[in-house]
Amino acid sequence: MEIMIGFIGLGLMGRPMALNLLKRGFKLAVFNRSRGPVDELVGFGAVGCSSASEVAELSETIIMMLPDEPEVRQVLTGENGVLKTMRKGGIVIDMSTVSPMFSREMAALVRERGGEMLDAPVSGSTMAAEQGSLTIMVGGRYETYEKVKPVLEAMGKNIYYMGESGSGSLTKLCNQVAVAVNLLGACETLIVASKAGLDLNKVIEVISSGAGGSWQLTNLGPRMVVKDFRPGFKVKHLRKDLRMVRETAERLGLCLPAVGLVSEFVKALDQLGHGEDGTQALITLLENLSNTRVG
Amino acid sequence: MEIMIGFIGLGLMGRPMALNLLKRGFKLAVFNRSRGPVDELVGFGAVGCSSASEVAELSETIIMMLPDEPEVRQVLTGENGVLKTMRKGGIVIDMSTVSPMFSREMAALVRERGGEMLDAPVSGSTMAAEQGSLTIMVGGRYETYEKVKPVLEAMGKNIYYMGESGSGSLTKLCNQVAVAVNLLGACETLIVASKAGLDLNKVIEVISSGAGGSWQLTNLGPRMVVKDFRPGFKVKHLRKDLRMVRETAERLGLCLPAVGLVSEFVKALDQLGHGEDGTQALITLLENLSNTRVG
Repeated sequence: MEIMIGFIGLGLMGRPMALNLLKRGFKLAVFNRSRGPVDELVGFGAVGCSSASEVAELSETIIMMLPDEPEVRQVLTGENGVLKTMRKGGIVIDMSTVSPMFSREMAALVRERGGEMLDAPVSGSTMAAEQGSLTIMVGGRYETYEKVKPVLEAMGKNIYYMGESGSGSLTKLCNQVAVAVNLLGACETLIVASKAGLDLNKVIEVISSGAGGSWQLTNLGPRMVVKDFRPGFKVKHLRKDLRMVRETAERLGLCLPAVGLVSEFVKALDQLGHGEDGTQALITLLENLSNTRVG
Repeated sequence: MEIMIGFIGLGLMGRPMALNLLKRGFKLAVFNRSRGPVDELVGFGAVGCSSASEVAELSETIIMMLPDEPEVRQVLTGENGVLKTMRKGGIVIDMSTVSPMFSREMAALVRERGGEMLDAPVSGSTMAAEQGSLTIMVGGRYETYEKVKPVLEAMGKNIYYMGESGSGSLTKLCNQVAVAVNLLGACETLIVASKAGLDLNKVIEVISSGAGGSWQLTNLGPRMVVKDFRPGFKVKHLRKDLRMVRETAERLGLCLPAVGLVSEFVKALDQLGHGEDGTQALITLLENLSNTRVG
């Protein structure tokens, strides 16, 4: 019997991830809210489905790559959801970025129905998704992780098992703390450099070579300089992730001053109409505060 | 005629830098407020001096590596200072971290006396100083920079000419913005990871491989985990550098929210008795705020 993989959520990230699974020879059953990406994947050999239930009916393992918690809940527990038809022993891999509490809640629901769930969010741009070089952080039972490792390896390069259910989501939130604070650091660095009249690309090069170096400055700094705000990672998604970080921090009783600061800025940036821009658009807010222009 | 290099300030950074000059065959005249390091360098072939004036009398090029602006002012303009005896056409290289305004003021004083000054602060740890692999950011006249380039190359690997007088100091301050904000980002990342019970070294590895990666997290994170607060870069020096960043931002009319936040924390950390610790000790402050312990 051929094993079928289900894939639900064919957006900016999900689409190239599903394509990589097809390339590696996996049989795929796919579903997406809008029909376009489904038809495209069908053209590459996937089985198109008209609901999450239909995907679950056909698949041993069901991957979800969805924008936020409500969508994950709907796809799992909704009218035509995965849990309706999931086979006993089925494995759900939720690769969406959600809170660890939510991951654990969903995992419990899946377990009640006789299945297992892994939280396995990713880090990396759409380019990394296309190249199959994502970083994947996995939480859940180790045995389940071992079973689906070949599936994850088709989509990611660095795959880390982090511990029990929720640990993948937690690690992803930790990653977003670093992403967001370093992003703000990169913006403030360039604000000083720019107002002072320095060669910005040279400053980025100098700082990247030493103790001030960060992925954010090296990769997004040059885009800030030329005002290229095309999204590698969207402002509205960072806003959502930071909301989850703060909810988690609240539950754990943690005080995160820099997260608090950058959250407010990212919220403002979204509300000022930059939601669909890449996160490097944060530079515009800092420019406004200092009444200056970078680049 | 053999060219003599003067070196004033044989501290944690200056001492290994001076040793590298000797190794490369430069003749050195050295002075330090405390006698110990002078005697040591004399043992390696340097000429020991008992004042900055004496160094300047013997040298074509005079390097200063001092803790703060008052020391630089004293060494240059004081009773037994460099300007008293500096030769016409002499070159002063100030490798201390000072503000760009201060660099320009000192450069003007040196020029009045018929010499030239470069601001050439460094980035990198004492280990980089020992290995001669510092990053050096140079401001001043390009012709002067070209003349002393071989001297700089004995101490650093990445040497960048940044522009007119003050540009080196400015670039260093930009670097310190990135250093300080990313440091706070690394702390908050580990606070979440720790309270959530994740394997901290694994989290550092995962995040370092992606968009949340930074020099601060990769290099200082593991020391935070084991509470190794031996200094690569001292809290009291970061406090001083951030004071200069804020003075410069004030002059330029810049609003730097994350710098403001991290400055207050670094000040508190210093005042709580951590001035001589490495900057990774910032984790203790964040631990207190969240009433938790990392590692």
